Amino acid sequence: MEDLYPSRQMDQPEILKRRDPVIHTDQSKDHQAPISKEQLDSYEKNGFLQIEDFFSGEEVNDMQKAIFELQDSNNDVTSDKVIREPESDDIRSIFHVHKDDNYFKDVANDQRILDIVQHLLGSDVYVHQSRINYKPGFKGKEFDWHSDFETWHIEDGMPRMRAVSLSIALSDNYTFNGPLMLIPGSQNYYVSCVGETPDNNYKASLKKQKFGVPDEDSLRKLTETGGGISVPTGKAGSITLFECNTMHGSTSNITPYPRNNLFMVYNSVENQLVDPFSGGKKRPEYIAVRDSGILTMS
Amino acid sequence: MEDLYPSRQMDQPEILKRRDPVIHTDQSKDHQAPISKEQLDSYEKNGFLQIEDFFSGEEVNDMQKAIFELQDSNNDVTSDKVIREPESDDIRSIFHVHKDDNYFKDVANDQRILDIVQHLLGSDVYVHQSRINYKPGFKGKEFDWHSDFETWHIEDGMPRMRAVSLSIALSDNYTFNGPLMLIPGSQNYYVSCVGETPDNNYKASLKKQKFGVPDEDSLRKLTETGGGISVPTGKAGSITLFECNTMHGSTSNITPYPRNNLFMVYNSVENQLVDPFSGGKKRPEYIAVRDSGILTMS
Repeated sequence: MEDLYPSRQMDQPEILKRRDPVIHTDQSKDHQAPISKEQLDSYEKNGFLQIEDFFSGEEVNDMQKAIFELQDSNNDVTSDKVIREPESDDIRSIFHVHKDDNYFKDVANDQRILDIVQHLLGSDVYVHQSRINYKPGFKGKEFDWHSDFETWHIEDGMPRMRAVSLSIALSDNYTFNGPLMLIPGSQNYYVSCVGETPDNNYKASLKKQKFGVPDEDSLRKLTETGGGISVPTGKAGSITLFECNTMHGSTSNITPYPRNNLFMVYNSVENQLVDPFSGGKKRPEYIAVRDSGILTMS
Repeated sequence: MEDLYPSRQMDQPEILKRRDPVIHTDQSKDHQAPISKEQLDSYEKNGFLQIEDFFSGEEVNDMQKAIFELQDSNNDVTSDKVIREPESDDIRSIFHVHKDDNYFKDVANDQRILDIVQHLLGSDVYVHQSRINYKPGFKGKEFDWHSDFETWHIEDGMPRMRAVSLSIALSDNYTFNGPLMLIPGSQNYYVSCVGETPDNNYKASLKKQKFGVPDEDSLRKLTETGGGISVPTGKAGSITLFECNTMHGSTSNITPYPRNNLFMVYNSVENQLVDPFSGGKKRPEYIAVRDSGILTMS
């Protein structure tokens, strides 16, 4: 398969134009969408969409309880799916929860979510990756700028830009507790990064990414083109949908306020993974689901 | 002299009540103040005050030019006054600029500033410390929570809470480029910290503070009492005045946007430094001015 989005092959970084639509359902069907025309336009322009109060207080309570129960039950578990803080043993993320846990399987299949992501991706969808992120007060580390798609394309063989990430806020997100930062409009450009991908890079990159890291000049250009940086804030229960190629990162959190979220990536069933474009080994199923059948909704 | 604010002596942290007024001029003279009653009240309640457009565009341009000229001229200088980034040689701060540089001497003596700080401190004032902070895009490191007064009291022998810090924004401050974060109301509590002060602690503490670090429980209590965390933002030319005991910190800056400022601390001439309450050596003059006469204004 032709590599439309080469990266980690050249000596110099390069900014390529996006070759896929941002919204994959034709505009003529906007009136059938489960979100408003303004929301669709905002997502298409900025590469992300924030929706307040998406989940009710009761649903939020249930989800908060569920993530900490899962954290507790994994405290003494040694598993690749359980990612711990570099400088402590605290659990930072738990992967693959949409398959390993019946409760989160139900959340991943929430019809309100599926309706939106099916419209954005213009097809049936499946969960490409899921995880719970625990970012406790005082200790949350920064995460540098990156495009998820760059990694999924190079390391997982995701051919096209036809996936969307969903972050469900499970604590209140302020501007100061290590929030998600996005570069609006960056979804329209692909930053081809320098450097090769070492084998088993994912084991280190889940803690701190060293390959597929965009260069400073490209980041500067993206912010100048897109008009800066956006920091969606909102109460627990709000959601952020962001396009797979939208450049994002987060700062450290030195405040007492935690920032926990449930993170799920939906991919189009018409965008099935092929061999990684790095030419390297496939990453494990818990990071990049290849068995797309099970959770496909229609 | 009695130590009203002991710290770094006990095994357990403790929160003590402030024993000094926040504004040292009597309320009956509010009408004589160079700032409004609302601004005075806000400073007294929150421990800080943000004033937009304090300096004109032309003044800002001059100051921006001046800080980079000074940075360039210090590039190859080996001096204790020039602080460099831990992981690179880039200049992070230059100290003592109100005495070493005629241009910044004039800024420190700006009558508009002096009028305000003299009112807040209820007396003539002098500059206790001055520095330029360079926080470039991508590379700015975080700075943990601290009360400046705790350090100035323990390491420099500043007896009472009767000083105010002034930060002049020399680049636009957003919520996302490593801004100053403050805990409103924290000026009313003194967090007595654990641990002793090693000799020459300042050489390391200017890069990363390890002593006089408030504990997490105390920080949590301060945010609960004060109602959270404030992040003043504003264009270059805005100023932030914050009381010497207001708890503050800043996150890292992973954005392309720099965050440069000129920082000056004014102390009351009636609050002259004595021997450090740590019982240790005095810090050098460029960090803690003891020769208060030269710049005293009236």
